[in-house]
Amino acid sequence: MFESAELGHSTDKDTYRQAVPALRAELLDAQLDLLELRQFAVVVLVNGVDKAGKGETVNLLNEWMDPRHIQTWAFDAPSAEESERPYMWRFWRALPPRGKIAVMFGNWYTQPIFERVDRTSKKAELDKRLDDIRRFESMLAQEGVLLIKFWFHLPRDAQKARLKALEKDPRTRWRVTERDWRYYNLYERYREVAGHVLRTTSTAAAPWLIVDGSDANYRALFVGRTLLSALRRRLDAASQHWTPRLSVAPLPPRVDGLNVLDALVRQDMKRKDYDDQLERLQGRLALLSRSPAFRTRALVLVFEGMDAAGKGGAIRRVVGALDARQYRVIPVAAPTDEESAQPYLWRFWRHLPRRGKVVVFDRSWYGRVLVERVEGFCSEADWMRAYAEINDFEDELASAGAVVVKFWLAISKDEQLARFKERESEPHKHFKITEEDWRNRDKWDEYSRAVCDMVDRTSTEYAPWTLVEADDKHFARIKVLRTICERLEAALG
Amino acid sequence: MFESAELGHSTDKDTYRQAVPALRAELLDAQLDLLELRQFAVVVLVNGVDKAGKGETVNLLNEWMDPRHIQTWAFDAPSAEESERPYMWRFWRALPPRGKIAVMFGNWYTQPIFERVDRTSKKAELDKRLDDIRRFESMLAQEGVLLIKFWFHLPRDAQKARLKALEKDPRTRWRVTERDWRYYNLYERYREVAGHVLRTTSTAAAPWLIVDGSDANYRALFVGRTLLSALRRRLDAASQHWTPRLSVAPLPPRVDGLNVLDALVRQDMKRKDYDDQLERLQGRLALLSRSPAFRTRALVLVFEGMDAAGKGGAIRRVVGALDARQYRVIPVAAPTDEESAQPYLWRFWRHLPRRGKVVVFDRSWYGRVLVERVEGFCSEADWMRAYAEINDFEDELASAGAVVVKFWLAISKDEQLARFKERESEPHKHFKITEEDWRNRDKWDEYSRAVCDMVDRTSTEYAPWTLVEADDKHFARIKVLRTICERLEAALG
Repeated sequence: MFESAELGHSTDKDTYRQAVPALRAELLDAQLDLLELRQFAVVVLVNGVDKAGKGETVNLLNEWMDPRHIQTWAFDAPSAEESERPYMWRFWRALPPRGKIAVMFGNWYTQPIFERVDRTSKKAELDKRLDDIRRFESMLAQEGVLLIKFWFHLPRDAQKARLKALEKDPRTRWRVTERDWRYYNLYERYREVAGHVLRTTSTAAAPWLIVDGSDANYRALFVGRTLLSALRRRLDAASQHWTPRLSVAPLPPRVDGLNVLDALVRQDMKRKDYDDQLERLQGRLALLSRSPAFRTRALVLVFEGMDAAGKGGAIRRVVGALDARQYRVIPVAAPTDEESAQPYLWRFWRHLPRRGKVVVFDRSWYGRVLVERVEGFCSEADWMRAYAEINDFEDELASAGAVVVKFWLAISKDEQLARFKERESEPHKHFKITEEDWRNRDKWDEYSRAVCDMVDRTSTEYAPWTLVEADDKHFARIKVLRTICERLEAALG
Repeated sequence: MFESAELGHSTDKDTYRQAVPALRAELLDAQLDLLELRQFAVVVLVNGVDKAGKGETVNLLNEWMDPRHIQTWAFDAPSAEESERPYMWRFWRALPPRGKIAVMFGNWYTQPIFERVDRTSKKAELDKRLDDIRRFESMLAQEGVLLIKFWFHLPRDAQKARLKALEKDPRTRWRVTERDWRYYNLYERYREVAGHVLRTTSTAAAPWLIVDGSDANYRALFVGRTLLSALRRRLDAASQHWTPRLSVAPLPPRVDGLNVLDALVRQDMKRKDYDDQLERLQGRLALLSRSPAFRTRALVLVFEGMDAAGKGGAIRRVVGALDARQYRVIPVAAPTDEESAQPYLWRFWRHLPRRGKVVVFDRSWYGRVLVERVEGFCSEADWMRAYAEINDFEDELASAGAVVVKFWLAISKDEQLARFKERESEPHKHFKITEEDWRNRDKWDEYSRAVCDMVDRTSTEYAPWTLVEADDKHFARIKVLRTICERLEAALG
């Protein structure tokens, strides 16, 4: 992995001075094209051995290009706001919008590597995390993010010499800490772990690029030119309306008429039973959400369903049991322009709850495999990969302690018609029915097909779907509340 | 202040049951109108005596209205991310966009009141903060935010009885803490401080509304109806295209041709001097920004100037001295749609630096009194009040430890023309010149007038303007760097 980087590359002063002006001009050019095109974002990861010139090189990039459109992020230990959410939350927060460049020091690789070097994590744990990272980066690539990963390398002797030299000069002495020497002593182990990480996370879309950090001129030209060629190649492709080629295997055809939605049978509940059970279940949920055990967990509720399926009514019965300080309802509508400039899941990550809190999504990330699929708002390749991306996302939520409960409120086509007509006739509910609702209704079968695929492909042990027979609103609300209580009880033990 | 609230109001069960359905329907209606109109946001503050039913009432509001469009915020002790920024930062983060309602428990009043009750702040400090709050709330009102402030009151005996009753019941015992009893013992002092706070912050636009918290039915109807009438009144006014009436005193006319811009005399600097000084000043700034003393401060730089004044070039020379991990450059362009739905200063608050960090604004909040004034993008009343609002904003920054340095890069009309022509002729710089630049140039005199007013009205001891003679780029960059170094040195001591 590090062979070429240990050859002792160097660039003499004259060559360097001659090369820089053209490189700067071209980098600046590429950056402006990126900004003007606004078609993709660039994420540059900077990792590697201490004192191999990471900071110096990034400072130089900022000097060469327009610093107004580069965001540089350094991640130290997570803050309280960060540590109460899934591991990847703070990196999602730092993703650049299309047209911009983000440089990330201390990114998603840092903690997994250091924990393995320090032996606070097992080999299997590291491999699980690398697997997560591979899938995350593949998602970024599919979303159009250009990901460039630099690893700054120094041979052991060179690192030692660098540390000694810095210590000797009173002006730079402060840059060498005890921690630096501790990790210098772990050099061989660090090299071994890094080699493993780099090999298993070098993919066609985002290979690791090893930088020989021993000579400042060489490494600056290497990083600058690598960045330039990656940018330029992608810009050229983009201007030719190139889209990533993906081979999409078609979903299997339906052979018979059986499906999970049609298999549901209408369930009714009497008003009196409803009133009784509502009160009992709300009380149960109130206690659960206020229990000490819940303070280290979080609750993420997802409500999906055809128009007029009763999502709003069900949500009100759920939050009626909660303290208003504790929950937030997120009605999912068209993305804002800040959201459209980001990878698809970004607008959901920003709403994730802290510990002890509840977030209710009224419609959700499943829009990708429902409305966007049916209406053709995204390509088949996009919604096909979304199943796995969504499963990964919910896995991260669950691993961070959130209880994820997902409901499909299922109504029949006849019941929907009855509710539409009722809404049209009552002035109070009139606002709830639009032209679009009628148009969606015409595509009932396509939506049903999409729902069945969604349930098949995203019902997981950590975030199963609950199909709710919703022709009778009372029955539906009680089933929703009971499911939440049961899932919480199982989780809180 | 609390006289009427101590009369022992109560509403019997039947009256309450009869009144609720109509109130709910009307509240929901008003909420929908608010959402559809998207013309103003609503902020409801909930403060008062412990155990006076604050939480219960807010839960009820969420039940009565559509919880998807109410955001409820509870502020405890500030997190690290919050405490490293000005006091108001977390409240700005929580402001709702137009069309939505935010309910805030534990808002900007909480800390000033408790610190005074605990005697950790002096009377004069409290009064300073109340003054800040009055100006902040007046800004919100001018920005169209409907602010409704509820104070939940309980007489001392009633509070004691409530605490005892909660303690007696095993299901509610957990709700009574030692802290509750401690503050119960301070009841008289709390009442006295609260009375003072309420009196001095009750304004015509946002008076305090005292809620008698002793009876649950009464307080629910009181809060619901008060909220409804405030919403309805404002909605009616909005639908009649009503705008707040403000009497604006005109700025004084110019009697002679003297102004601070014309008083500037071109300054030149030789290339050699420039190179020498640049290196020295960048070194000085590098050391200052890395000094331990800077870790508890922050640096906010503002660059303004006519088109082609050299802002970008100056910024690059400044950040060239900084570590890329430490600074962020914010190029200010048209607001995003999320930003347009908020009070004017919101989009700048979101970028404020933590301790030890630098934020560079390439154009800034001064757009309000420059381009927006000249182009008529906002009313005279809006930009006239902006001077005071901006001064308050920068005062908050400075009080939180930030060093605020503001530059006006002044070029002559001739120099601008020369630079425009140069940009047009060089393919590399062509992107930098647009139709709009030529149009702005036609309004040179109006812009100059706006700049002079701006400097007169927003140059404060805590955030003075530095006018930079910028016809010679070298001179300008050196003056910028030297000013930053001097301001930092003075601040770091």
